[in-house]
Amino acid sequence: MPLWKVYHPPGAYTGDEKKGLAQAITSVYGRVMPKFYVGVVFQAVSADNAYISGEPHPAFVRLCVDHIARTFQSDATKVGFFTRMNTLLAPWIADRGFEWEMHVDETPFDLWTIQGYFPPRAGTEDETRWIAENRASPRTHP
Amino acid sequence: MPLWKVYHPPGAYTGDEKKGLAQAITSVYGRVMPKFYVGVVFQAVSADNAYISGEPHPAFVRLCVDHIARTFQSDATKVGFFTRMNTLLAPWIADRGFEWEMHVDETPFDLWTIQGYFPPRAGTEDETRWIAENRASPRTHP
Amino acid sequence: MPLWKVYHPPGAYTGDEKKGLAQAITSVYGRVMPKFYVGVVFQAVSADNAYISGEPHPAFVRLCVDHIARTFQSDATKVGFFTRMNTLLAPWIADRGFEWEMHVDETPFDLWTIQGYFPPRAGTEDETRWIAENRASPRTHP
Repeated sequence: MPLWKVYHPPGAYTGDEKKGLAQAITSVYGRVMPKFYVGVVFQAVSADNAYISGEPHPAFVRLCVDHIARTFQSDATKVGFFTRMNTLLAPWIADRGFEWEMHVDETPFDLWTIQGYFPPRAGTEDETRWIAENRASPRTHP
Repeated sequence: MPLWKVYHPPGAYTGDEKKGLAQAITSVYGRVMPKFYVGVVFQAVSADNAYISGEPHPAFVRLCVDHIARTFQSDATKVGFFTRMNTLLAPWIADRGFEWEMHVDETPFDLWTIQGYFPPRAGTEDETRWIAENRASPRTHP
Repeated sequence: MPLWKVYHPPGAYTGDEKKGLAQAITSVYGRVMPKFYVGVVFQAVSADNAYISGEPHPAFVRLCVDHIARTFQSDATKVGFFTRMNTLLAPWIADRGFEWEMHVDETPFDLWTIQGYFPPRAGTEDETRWIAENRASPRTHP
């Protein structure tokens, strides 16, 4: 579920830094869902392929996120999520002088499969097992 | 309408294999809508740009699909679609040992144009012509 | 807010042409919202990575747009938007013989931040300031 797409300037991050950012993101979701749900894809975009205000931007990080496994249930959880991400992401983005923008879409839970399996609903026995084993496996209940 | 984005490991597929996969996907939709609605974009993502569980993953295929022309009308059709895709995609994904995840979003029908034309509704005379000619052309009715 | 993703054939556009297209797009939104809301990302996709009807397509431009700051309030505004974009984009797309498709999704306003700030609602004092300064700054009202 969450799929993070990170557009960043070429050379912005080393492999280790990308891994660190992916692990920071994963840590947030990993408390409440299987860690392997968290996918992060990095894509370098050069300034002449990235425009803000109609001008090429050499130092912009754009985060596009799809949430699938969970939907926000209240305004408070939305604000809490973004507030936390602000703090968490700062060492990779704001603290380096990058400008940035982030948006989340929520896509349908029942139009999603992993290894061909429909993931279990939150709080079910199957999800507990998926969390424990950190991998997809056949469902034992509908 | 359906736009399939396929993130895959570099070198996972030859050009012919990509074409084969695109044709398999197209065959499913092509029974009920113009074949030229089906777009498939492949993008190679190296392991240090693709993280699952916060770890680089060298053998992961991630399918991101936007459905525009049709929305699923029942749980049965949703399950049927994914079950069929599992079987259809296996030779390119599961059978090669790739791990994979797929999700579909449904986006607004009336915020979509092809060659500048708003596509006709399902079952209309215009759609029948678009299917027969496999190209967009001026609408003859609203 | 609007994030435009432009998939295009390799070599379709020079840097100046991309900038021109980005500025044309920005001009439409810039009348009613801060110009820096407008992001345009270009991505070259070679024919063997871009399939329409299951065939590689060497001359296809695919525009994927996320609208966040505003949602269309009527059918008339939807048609007006696309009609205007058709005209505006023609010099970069239709007039060059490219085939093209475009779709817009509308994603949640309250799941979106710029520089860590939740953008102000349309018509507020804060938005007026963001427009005037063309940059994000702390909100002065909720």
